[in-house]
Amino acid sequence: MTRREFEAVETEMLKGMQRSVHDTGHIYRVLYGALRIAATEPKADRDIVILAALLHDIGRAAEKRPGVGHAEAGAGMAYDMLRRAGWGESAAAHVRNCVRTHSYKGGQKPQSIEAKILFDADKLDLAGAVGCARALLFGAQIDEPLYRLGPDGLPSPGLPGEESSILREYNRKLKHLPEKMFTAEGRRLAAKRQKAMDDYFAALAKEIYSGYKKGAKLLSAELENSENK
Amino acid sequence: MTRREFEAVETEMLKGMQRSVHDTGHIYRVLYGALRIAATEPKADRDIVILAALLHDIGRAAEKRPGVGHAEAGAGMAYDMLRRAGWGESAAAHVRNCVRTHSYKGGQKPQSIEAKILFDADKLDLAGAVGCARALLFGAQIDEPLYRLGPDGLPSPGLPGEESSILREYNRKLKHLPEKMFTAEGRRLAAKRQKAMDDYFAALAKEIYSGYKKGAKLLSAELENSENK
Repeated sequence: MTRREFEAVETEMLKGMQRSVHDTGHIYRVLYGALRIAATEPKADRDIVILAALLHDIGRAAEKRPGVGHAEAGAGMAYDMLRRAGWGESAAAHVRNCVRTHSYKGGQKPQSIEAKILFDADKLDLAGAVGCARALLFGAQIDEPLYRLGPDGLPSPGLPGEESSILREYNRKLKHLPEKMFTAEGRRLAAKRQKAMDDYFAALAKEIYSGYKKGAKLLSAELENSENK
Repeated sequence: MTRREFEAVETEMLKGMQRSVHDTGHIYRVLYGALRIAATEPKADRDIVILAALLHDIGRAAEKRPGVGHAEAGAGMAYDMLRRAGWGESAAAHVRNCVRTHSYKGGQKPQSIEAKILFDADKLDLAGAVGCARALLFGAQIDEPLYRLGPDGLPSPGLPGEESSILREYNRKLKHLPEKMFTAEGRRLAAKRQKAMDDYFAALAKEIYSGYKKGAKLLSAELENSENK
């Protein structure tokens, strides 16, 4: 597509994204990630990949309607927007399909190579140090705690069976991100970034646990000391 | 103090902290950090340290009144609460003083060893992997972007002179945290955790910059290619 065609869709997308400064950064990281993956997939239609990446989250505002996920809502919005902008039926329908299957929650798996590239680029933004930041920012949005305390009053490790926390989200989902990818390049890029994420969450869990362990021991000693005076 | 005395103040503090799950975790990490620092300061009055740590942020809800910082507001609230709970004038006034000087923004530096311990324990919770998490959570609260783009459309490094971002907050403040400490143990603990933070922000800056750089190049090539067709 030409730069003018790109900018027309970009402008429409930006109008629809009025939530948070963090969201528009995500769109460009997904777009750039998708182009990197597409560069290793000669059969991929790059126009479709670019349009799908730009528009994949425009349904976010609609997500709050009961029963309508942002992928499903955004798919229809993307189709309509592209048709209005003069794109053909076949391109608009293909983009609609990519947007519909980009989220885990939609229930449908991506089928075309373009849909797989969008899915992987979106998940890639949950990998590495950027993924840590997004997990924390999202945790803040839904007021999820960083960690939970176990019955002993010490921080739990955040294993999959525990009550929800950002630490559990890492152990349950983010740790296994590279395995979820559909393209070889998506898997390679996610795996490359995984160490930064693993290092971060390991340091976090260690700092928290060791801080509570040492501090709680000092507090008990102090309070028991006073009882015995 | 006895466990019963501790729990009485803890209960009152928890009643006053109704904001976010992230805040109460902070209180206990500061309490435990303060006890670890106090263990290396034989002259410190540990009752004062414990009370000041428990109560240091109870003024957070009051911060929104114009011209009243949370440290100043909380100082008076802590004094009143302790007097009502039966603590003597001298202890309550000492805690008031510690709470008043625990924040950079108050303008007054901590003077007593107990005030210095509280200040350092509070800052210690901005160090390391926990500090990264808190910087990101706080950034989300005030809708601050992770990074800014420079005139070339690529992410800026977040240097002190730039527009505000979470990356700039690291370069401007968090990177230099150990230097700001008043106690030797506070400095030692902060320095020990600094590597996890430095590693994290270095990985973040690198991932973001390299992703934009490579992706933007592919996008330009793609759009220019179409122009020339």
